[in-house]
Amino acid sequence: MRRTIDWADGAIVIVDQVALPAEYRTLTLRTVTELVDAIQRLAVRGAPALGAAGALGVALAATQGGDVRAEADRIAHARPTAVNLAWGVSRALAQLPHGPNAVLAEAQAMLDEDEQRNRAASAHAAEIVLDSCPRRTLRFLSHCNTGHLATVAWGTALGVVWHLHARNLVESVLVDETRPLLQGSRLTAWELAQAGVPYRVQADGAAAAAMARGLVDCVLVGADRIAANGDVANKIGTYGLAIAAAHHRIPFIVVAPTSTVDTSLATGADITIEERAATELTESAPPGATAFNPAFDVTPNALITAVVTENGAFHS
Amino acid sequence: MRRTIDWADGAIVIVDQVALPAEYRTLTLRTVTELVDAIQRLAVRGAPALGAAGALGVALAATQGGDVRAEADRIAHARPTAVNLAWGVSRALAQLPHGPNAVLAEAQAMLDEDEQRNRAASAHAAEIVLDSCPRRTLRFLSHCNTGHLATVAWGTALGVVWHLHARNLVESVLVDETRPLLQGSRLTAWELAQAGVPYRVQADGAAAAAMARGLVDCVLVGADRIAANGDVANKIGTYGLAIAAAHHRIPFIVVAPTSTVDTSLATGADITIEERAATELTESAPPGATAFNPAFDVTPNALITAVVTENGAFHS
Repeated sequence: MRRTIDWADGAIVIVDQVALPAEYRTLTLRTVTELVDAIQRLAVRGAPALGAAGALGVALAATQGGDVRAEADRIAHARPTAVNLAWGVSRALAQLPHGPNAVLAEAQAMLDEDEQRNRAASAHAAEIVLDSCPRRTLRFLSHCNTGHLATVAWGTALGVVWHLHARNLVESVLVDETRPLLQGSRLTAWELAQAGVPYRVQADGAAAAAMARGLVDCVLVGADRIAANGDVANKIGTYGLAIAAAHHRIPFIVVAPTSTVDTSLATGADITIEERAATELTESAPPGATAFNPAFDVTPNALITAVVTENGAFHS
Repeated sequence: MRRTIDWADGAIVIVDQVALPAEYRTLTLRTVTELVDAIQRLAVRGAPALGAAGALGVALAATQGGDVRAEADRIAHARPTAVNLAWGVSRALAQLPHGPNAVLAEAQAMLDEDEQRNRAASAHAAEIVLDSCPRRTLRFLSHCNTGHLATVAWGTALGVVWHLHARNLVESVLVDETRPLLQGSRLTAWELAQAGVPYRVQADGAAAAAMARGLVDCVLVGADRIAANGDVANKIGTYGLAIAAAHHRIPFIVVAPTSTVDTSLATGADITIEERAATELTESAPPGATAFNPAFDVTPNALITAVVTENGAFHS
């Protein structure tokens, strides 16, 4: 599978995640405005992929001249919750004194690193899963999308499935559709189908019932920001899943690169949660309906079996 | 508001719940086949409304002649989980020896009873809510649809909101959209808008986050079948809500008429759970996607603050 986000001919090329699964196509982003728009409407999404977008965005601004720091600031604030975005911007921007080529080289190095770090984090997590779950083969529950499409390549939580599928240790994956934007039924289902991993889509509300029926050996999720104490901000619905998993004593594993860790925040209570437009939820509702639409929630570390990065299990 | 289901001119007239909220219209069902189809595609739904549908269906068969018992059996098995359907069929059928007019009179008496029982059950529940929740005014969380449309009239869990709204004790209702068929965002939102009760729609996955933020004083749900020990089968997602409510020590109240209680089943483990078509969940998924799509789940009584019927709090 090609990279989800890359640099080509002086522009940023992304897999258009709004078009999937109906159509697999790329978009070429030639300006910072186009990039910010793509980030805000989730054509590129996933915390690690947003880190790459941040770095490449600064490279785009640097190669085009103008007020690079102002443009970098605009990119860093395109969405508030995933810390990777600001991290990617900041790391690329640090090379600005050395010129546009240095910025671009740094961004490209970060893209290479992303796949390596995600492969390593998910390999560590796979071993923790095998230690935590006696059953073979394994039946996973997945929320949102944490595969290739959420990263430059490979994936975080879904990377665990790739590692274990290669060892014939995956029986199936229950895929939370992940309302409102259906990253599970659209993107995760598509990735699993491409990889030949058996899966079933379920309503987010069915997850606890699946656990009660004994259909879930382990829950795998990614993260958008991890506080110093190991609290995890992730796609809305993650917290309820974690409560249900704890109730059923099912391992609940978070997989993310260290770029998702924000040690400047003591706890998850300090994480800014993006609230998105009501229209994501009111298409079927009566005219005038409003919505409570936080894009993320915070799961306290106490409900999590392990937060795993490329350095292994994260300890607060 | 007119009755959700009624008898008129030798036929069954229902509010078409598939058309709402875009259009408020009625459907006239002139044959048992049309009724079974309406039940299976959820044009009429909600356990108490299904009880009425069962009774009126037998009246329809009886007034039209033919093999009434075979037709009654077909109606009773149109959907498996809500016990009210078979209860309505059985009660009307018991009058068959007295002729078609006796069957119809019984069915019509059941329609009258339904509103009275739901008003009484929700009035009892409203007092339990006021005793359980110190805050005034109250902020409720609602799952699926439990209002007028789920019954002949008035409603069960949402009936609590009608009683307390009349006393100016309702601040707002958070409405789970209730995937896959969106009975919350389509039907509950429409009823709340009609009644002038402030509400916001949320993704089912946002419920636990709303609780963690302190936005929910009490969870109100209905029931499709209640076992002898007080375990409750209800719309998929109810069980996860109950786990989350218990985690946050938020009262979790179930409201249903006694026709929803099935004392022949010792526990919720004995309740048959309807599995519906994958297509309810795979519209956005890649071709060939399958789904885990139970329409209901079972909440153990231990997670429920009170199961309330027209006789008051239910004791197993």
